[in-house]
Amino acid sequence: MRSHYCGAINESHIDQDVTLCGWVHRRRDHGGVIFLDLRDRDGIAQVVFDPDTAESFARADKVRSEYVVKVRGRVRARPAGTENSNMATGQVEVLGKELELLNAAATPPFPLDEYVDVGEDVRLRYRFMDLRRPEMLNRLRFRSRVTTYIRNFLDGEGFLDIETPILTRATPEGARDYLVPSRTHAGSFFALPQSPQLFKQLLMVSGIDRYYQVAKCFRDEDLRADRQPEFTQVDVECSFIDEVQLTGIMERMVRQMFAELLSVELPEFPRITYAEAMSRYGSDKPDLRIPLELVDVADLVADVDFKVFSGPAKDPKGRVAALRVPQGGELSRKQIDDYTKFVAIYGARGLAWIKVNELAKGAEGLQSPIVKFLGEETSLAIMKRLGAADGDIVFFGADKVNVVNEALGALRVKVGHDLGRLEREWAPCWVVDFPMFEELPDGGLHAIHHPFTAPSCSAEELKADPANALSRAYDMVLNGTELGGGSIRISDEKMQETVFGLLGIDHEAARAKFGFLLDALRFGCPPHGGLAFGLDRLIMLMTGAQSIRDVIAFPKTQSATCLMTEAPGEVDEKQLQELHIRLRKPVAENNQAGVDQSNVKG
Amino acid sequence: MRSHYCGAINESHIDQDVTLCGWVHRRRDHGGVIFLDLRDRDGIAQVVFDPDTAESFARADKVRSEYVVKVRGRVRARPAGTENSNMATGQVEVLGKELELLNAAATPPFPLDEYVDVGEDVRLRYRFMDLRRPEMLNRLRFRSRVTTYIRNFLDGEGFLDIETPILTRATPEGARDYLVPSRTHAGSFFALPQSPQLFKQLLMVSGIDRYYQVAKCFRDEDLRADRQPEFTQVDVECSFIDEVQLTGIMERMVRQMFAELLSVELPEFPRITYAEAMSRYGSDKPDLRIPLELVDVADLVADVDFKVFSGPAKDPKGRVAALRVPQGGELSRKQIDDYTKFVAIYGARGLAWIKVNELAKGAEGLQSPIVKFLGEETSLAIMKRLGAADGDIVFFGADKVNVVNEALGALRVKVGHDLGRLEREWAPCWVVDFPMFEELPDGGLHAIHHPFTAPSCSAEELKADPANALSRAYDMVLNGTELGGGSIRISDEKMQETVFGLLGIDHEAARAKFGFLLDALRFGCPPHGGLAFGLDRLIMLMTGAQSIRDVIAFPKTQSATCLMTEAPGEVDEKQLQELHIRLRKPVAENNQAGVDQSNVKG
Repeated sequence: MRSHYCGAINESHIDQDVTLCGWVHRRRDHGGVIFLDLRDRDGIAQVVFDPDTAESFARADKVRSEYVVKVRGRVRARPAGTENSNMATGQVEVLGKELELLNAAATPPFPLDEYVDVGEDVRLRYRFMDLRRPEMLNRLRFRSRVTTYIRNFLDGEGFLDIETPILTRATPEGARDYLVPSRTHAGSFFALPQSPQLFKQLLMVSGIDRYYQVAKCFRDEDLRADRQPEFTQVDVECSFIDEVQLTGIMERMVRQMFAELLSVELPEFPRITYAEAMSRYGSDKPDLRIPLELVDVADLVADVDFKVFSGPAKDPKGRVAALRVPQGGELSRKQIDDYTKFVAIYGARGLAWIKVNELAKGAEGLQSPIVKFLGEETSLAIMKRLGAADGDIVFFGADKVNVVNEALGALRVKVGHDLGRLEREWAPCWVVDFPMFEELPDGGLHAIHHPFTAPSCSAEELKADPANALSRAYDMVLNGTELGGGSIRISDEKMQETVFGLLGIDHEAARAKFGFLLDALRFGCPPHGGLAFGLDRLIMLMTGAQSIRDVIAFPKTQSATCLMTEAPGEVDEKQLQELHIRLRKPVAENNQAGVDQSNVKG
Repeated sequence: MRSHYCGAINESHIDQDVTLCGWVHRRRDHGGVIFLDLRDRDGIAQVVFDPDTAESFARADKVRSEYVVKVRGRVRARPAGTENSNMATGQVEVLGKELELLNAAATPPFPLDEYVDVGEDVRLRYRFMDLRRPEMLNRLRFRSRVTTYIRNFLDGEGFLDIETPILTRATPEGARDYLVPSRTHAGSFFALPQSPQLFKQLLMVSGIDRYYQVAKCFRDEDLRADRQPEFTQVDVECSFIDEVQLTGIMERMVRQMFAELLSVELPEFPRITYAEAMSRYGSDKPDLRIPLELVDVADLVADVDFKVFSGPAKDPKGRVAALRVPQGGELSRKQIDDYTKFVAIYGARGLAWIKVNELAKGAEGLQSPIVKFLGEETSLAIMKRLGAADGDIVFFGADKVNVVNEALGALRVKVGHDLGRLEREWAPCWVVDFPMFEELPDGGLHAIHHPFTAPSCSAEELKADPANALSRAYDMVLNGTELGGGSIRISDEKMQETVFGLLGIDHEAARAKFGFLLDALRFGCPPHGGLAFGLDRLIMLMTGAQSIRDVIAFPKTQSATCLMTEAPGEVDEKQLQELHIRLRKPVAENNQAGVDQSNVKG
């Protein structure tokens, strides 16, 4: 119906007739003429109706915000002095000749052009209006460009796009599955996949060689700020390859994509071991834009009288670390108190600190509640190790290793942002050499990646010292966010059974749950590995959106509902009968509410 | 790990060292040397090990079918007389220097290279082996090429790839939904989408303008041969467009795709009205490869004594039609009897026929059980209308319209195939001008496309004569298969309410189920329309596969199970508690089986 998108009109079209279709973004009367700002997905064009074209003028007089119209007219330069350099089309306007009203519109539930502080609930309820805002529309458009870019890149590298099932069996990622009752098999349930992990490994066993999929994944977990019940993963798997080759392809893809879509030249991704990342940054997804680092000082404080430090220093599972903030001495007492509360979120029982006022004065020059406990010699030894200078502040963490890492790791990022210490806009890296397992409180083992990740040692070595074994896993991290992760997989049945065994899954249970995988490993499995990117998070980072919900067309709230469609909803008794299930009745005794309450226990 | 794919080795590589990785397709000892056919996704290369390389020779001696190996060697021409012109790599072989065993393999559950008649159950149980067969692998690869082609085409036309939710509300396509119990909202359920219909319409209301998605859709229906519980749809929607423009884009896409991927030049798609398709072919998805046509003869037989014909001829809901098969007179009595049984499947109570032996002899020259009932004059009038010639056979259908259409429509296709009467390999068309509604036995109306399809008349005209109103729907048909369908949608709230009303959905119910859509229509909805292709069926047609399961990596059986993963499966009582549901107990009294039986009633 249109000849051009509104946003595409420019000086090259002057004296041409154009036909535009779109929404009335704004309508103004001025000096006897009517100005319509006409909006479509590409932008806004100004259309002018004067009384010479009486019929169209009368129609234009009646349109309101968000009416849908079709306009035919001639492009002309705006009168001198009325150009708008903030608009792509600001040098020109369209002198309207015909106006056709395609659809009227009720008054919008919130103003689109003065969007400031509309509550997210209203935005989600009227999502079809919220998406009209150019900011939102451009994010969806950018998302489409990213997926297209990724697909074409992978296609060019010989990866085949293969769909794996959504109705499947419980997968072992460890989160709660969404279940789908089977009608044809009473009492049985499908699970929605947490990832296509096992299917993509089976495709490698089939000889597909290179697989990818932009795959929907599902986790029925309590939602944090940046989680959704369904999310999208760029899922990749490759045979006859090692971690260097695979991470190389993926790094090339991300660097090319940033260059082409954002004009950002990412540096080569440094590779950091998990151990180094935890030691220097207190995190396995270090934000390398921030130059601050954790430094171990346990050896210097092991023998001081100050138990808060010496205790963890002597504990094999403890850590004492310092975080020097160059020229951070200006922080106020209030700010330091706020940081103390901040680290408490991560379990830290306090936040010791030393301000370096004048090093030349020795302990005298150090302002701190703890120097008197540490003593001058120790305090100065710490300053020396840290390379402290006048004007700095040093924060300390002393506790179990994980508490220190989490608290100081988070503080490092927060202080870095608060004080504007980001050295660059983009800082990617690979984190490698993850441990195979973490120990559970009950002494059992838990797979850090997943049970299909290959160790970097033999089965014998693994059995001998599982807690210290490293895996062939790798994470891609950007600006402190994990963009994706993957590993070289176990391709040997015996190794897979060994790992299952260490995880407490005996032969019987392994056969029952993963029999088809073990079969597949037996019938000629190639060496293979892969990776998955969290697409939503990648788009969020690339667009600078504040919430993952802002890069998803129709997201769920944090209580996993869709405010627009009001899903989930009630269903007929007949449907439940067909699915061989019934609702549990609420059992709380004084409970007046029906089945709709959300905290009912069965 | 490899330098080349096996299938890529050719004479240009002679005297080069190559490294190949893959599966041992076959191993032969011959004249003191060992021949390995090494297979990967690209093809098969012959590798020769001779005793000169003792270590590798010994290893090669031990490998068996489907072992995974890495081979380094030098490409050479095969000795004269041993070339194999059936293989892409048949002019060369690789003289193996090193062989590394990457993985052993148990004896395959069925032989891959002598695949003849392995039961589908075994193939599905060991799908990862079945997919190793080049035939299967090539279908998946072709499928990937098709989706990539479609995506790039649509991307080039300005369509944005936008994901819509999988966890959503019941959609109104009319089939049974798969349900997902909500954990956070006791007693509520998500539905898996039967299509993204409403979401894509909402995206048009948002101003996305052009949307596409390769979308997973779900229907919990009893499965026929070419149905799957989850299937894939190429889903398209577009604003400010009419049916001519939209079908034009889609036709261009399919024609370009056939040209580029299959080297098939499809003709311009003829447009056939629904009425004409039913009249001439007895089907709204006519197989136009077959030149046979149905011809109405009711007016000629309305007054004969033969009630089998005159009854339906005088019934306003009846039809009497003839199908002339040129030179079909050779059909034996047995064959005609088989066709009589065939049309009975479609409800026909018999199959009248006339063989044209010698027209010049009048009724004498017609061989038939019915000529005596019709009389000579009528019989010859029919022959004249049909343009019958000596050697032809004419079949008749006389019954309710739909019985005649279905029976003769199916017979037309069957006879056309049986007698090899296909005039060309590919015959596409558009079917247009569908009725808005079909009448239900209870006198109610049912939407032929869906309730969001726009009529080609005004709301007043629609209300005045809904049974005869036409819609702005269109189907793309290829070789008698519906490839896709779509329509221009209702963009006006009042028209939508009118259609809901005619379908027996009152204002209250419409608000409850589709309130968000009605809202969206109120706030400035552009004219829009779209289409969806069934991707699985498209790939099946393009690859010539016999079953939809052969173009899906991990399909379900006709009882909606996955034989490989054994989905659906049982789940823990704890999971059911979290989801606020419990299983219904079987109630059949003498029922010994547990919850696993499939015919339990609650």
